[in-house]
Amino acid sequence: MAADYQAADSVGIVEPRTLHFQEPVRLEGGHTLPEFDLVVETYGELNAEADNAVLVCHALSGHHHAAGFHSAEDRKPGWWDACIGPGKPIDTNRFFVVSLNNIGGCHGSTGPASTNPDTGRPYGPDFPVVTVRDWVKTQARLADRLGIEQWAAVIGGSLGGMQALDWAIHYPERLRHAVVIAATPRLTAQNIAFNEVSRKAITSDPAFHDGRYLEHDTSPQRGLMLARMVGHITYLSDVSMGEKFGRELRDHAYHYGFDAEFQVESYLQYQGERFSENFDANTYLLMTRSLDYFDPAREFGNDLSRAMAEARCRFLVLSFSSDWRFAPEHSEKIVNALVDARRDVSYAEIHSNWGHDAFLVPNERYLRLFRAYMNRVAEEPRHAR
Amino acid sequence: MAADYQAADSVGIVEPRTLHFQEPVRLEGGHTLPEFDLVVETYGELNAEADNAVLVCHALSGHHHAAGFHSAEDRKPGWWDACIGPGKPIDTNRFFVVSLNNIGGCHGSTGPASTNPDTGRPYGPDFPVVTVRDWVKTQARLADRLGIEQWAAVIGGSLGGMQALDWAIHYPERLRHAVVIAATPRLTAQNIAFNEVSRKAITSDPAFHDGRYLEHDTSPQRGLMLARMVGHITYLSDVSMGEKFGRELRDHAYHYGFDAEFQVESYLQYQGERFSENFDANTYLLMTRSLDYFDPAREFGNDLSRAMAEARCRFLVLSFSSDWRFAPEHSEKIVNALVDARRDVSYAEIHSNWGHDAFLVPNERYLRLFRAYMNRVAEEPRHAR
Repeated sequence: MAADYQAADSVGIVEPRTLHFQEPVRLEGGHTLPEFDLVVETYGELNAEADNAVLVCHALSGHHHAAGFHSAEDRKPGWWDACIGPGKPIDTNRFFVVSLNNIGGCHGSTGPASTNPDTGRPYGPDFPVVTVRDWVKTQARLADRLGIEQWAAVIGGSLGGMQALDWAIHYPERLRHAVVIAATPRLTAQNIAFNEVSRKAITSDPAFHDGRYLEHDTSPQRGLMLARMVGHITYLSDVSMGEKFGRELRDHAYHYGFDAEFQVESYLQYQGERFSENFDANTYLLMTRSLDYFDPAREFGNDLSRAMAEARCRFLVLSFSSDWRFAPEHSEKIVNALVDARRDVSYAEIHSNWGHDAFLVPNERYLRLFRAYMNRVAEEPRHAR
Repeated sequence: MAADYQAADSVGIVEPRTLHFQEPVRLEGGHTLPEFDLVVETYGELNAEADNAVLVCHALSGHHHAAGFHSAEDRKPGWWDACIGPGKPIDTNRFFVVSLNNIGGCHGSTGPASTNPDTGRPYGPDFPVVTVRDWVKTQARLADRLGIEQWAAVIGGSLGGMQALDWAIHYPERLRHAVVIAATPRLTAQNIAFNEVSRKAITSDPAFHDGRYLEHDTSPQRGLMLARMVGHITYLSDVSMGEKFGRELRDHAYHYGFDAEFQVESYLQYQGERFSENFDANTYLLMTRSLDYFDPAREFGNDLSRAMAEARCRFLVLSFSSDWRFAPEHSEKIVNALVDARRDVSYAEIHSNWGHDAFLVPNERYLRLFRAYMNRVAEEPRHAR
């Protein structure tokens, strides 16, 4: 059963639009972007009180296209179509959903492949490192532009969940709920190590040209492919890879060579190759670095409870049992800090074999809990807060 | 306290020697090696009955130099010096210990960097894929040469443990004990996936030249570095990396760039670079492929118990709590199959934070159990069997 733009629970055909922001934005690393574009999709209608808006934040390789289809011929819907649509957990009959491509991205928002106004050439390696704080700052500009004083909820999985956490800490009055899925309050050494391998794969590719590959009319596709292959392993779990591939051979025999003969090998290569054709290498570097740097407790004396005490919103935190990238213990650290800070938090660890990717995969209990929480968000009278 | 060749529990200065084997060996993949060399070190003395010999099998990047020092100036002892020496678990006062570099290796035994007698050039990519079976077959030739009809024990960690398993299944009369540490009866899809990323890193390096890099007077060092970085992460554990590095920065500040600034980044890069200078890329491909193919149950209808029923020796199986490459469940599969096959097996899961590398790291309970078992091996009268 293919996804269908005419399905009753689909947002249907959607169209991205580009918003231009003239005011410079000073980034955490010290650089200033003189101006920037954000590519945005919205689903549902903003109500008269402008109090039903939900912001969806994307993860590492994500973008603005979270739900629906770009055309009737489109075979695949947006990346979070399982959760966004009429009657879905983020119910577009009730919410006005805003989804964007973050700055530094490679799907239309200002990023390394954009033209640097100072030089007339692509930014490339001159695009400044951007952090979760920087994204949230530009998302706040977006909210201003859309006339949204306060989000009903800011929602994200993985790196998206970190953005929701940052909103709660740094713009406490501007959201009523944060939904933080499969996230972490900060990466472990192992997480950083995997990111570093990915970056090294890209930067050591001779086609990288110190980041100026576009000017050389090329792209470090081998490096990107390797980065994605490593990443992909960490997004899945040993169990899900075992269930999906096991030790299955492509033609039932050992060939005693190095061509892909286990199914899992050709799958990984395929994923890596497809990704490397469609993603910008400099963006990959930026996104992984943003993950590394995220550590909201840092400016609060490494005390996450103190960071979370800044928040005024309510929280839903979800984790997945087989996620070994940001295992449930990562989410529990967030929950413990919220409890210590006496914030209102609901937490569930969802049983799933899908590893970190589980936040993208429909799962009955996941969807049920998510929907129940979002119903509460929709029904709660704003003035009660 | 540095290791010292004069220490009472050191085997002291040792010298490798090269044994040449004239008889061709037919490999599992169908190729025949017309002749081959094995580089060997031995520690301790073979007794008159030739019944105190122990074979130590190396893992992925290992070699024959398992204990002692090559010179008085040598700063680091062999890779398993913690376990081999007078009074150590593999007690050289009691055992004659044999350690070799397997064929396909890059430390002196015949491998891809050796001269192909058919062409007068390095084998390179023409060196045939070798399997655990092939290694055990050549090790049996080595035993013949040394006058060892039956090993007191065949011992190994990780890929070395797989060789011990294979000995038990295919040469049941030629060993009295198998010590199988941090091993697995077969790799999972995730294990194979990590190996494939490593291989792809090497083979996609332009300096690989389809494996003929020696003839181009170069080496795919970037690829090898990446392969080692990925491997290294899987040898350690999230906990040990956290304890060793955490999120420590090299100079206490974020620099908002892509140079190594977290300690874990520079450590990984250093490890990768050192390794890439000293290891042969084709050997790395061969060793990882041998891991992928190992699956002794395969020729027994995928029934590991049937495979283990071939064995006549006794077994010690050890696993480590934080090993996520070959987690304790892998060892438990071996133990369960042995129990089903009514073999004599001792098993322990050792608590350690060192991940897969724990088999190389001195740990009180590990050394105590290992020593106690080896004492039993030494004291047991051969005629009692």
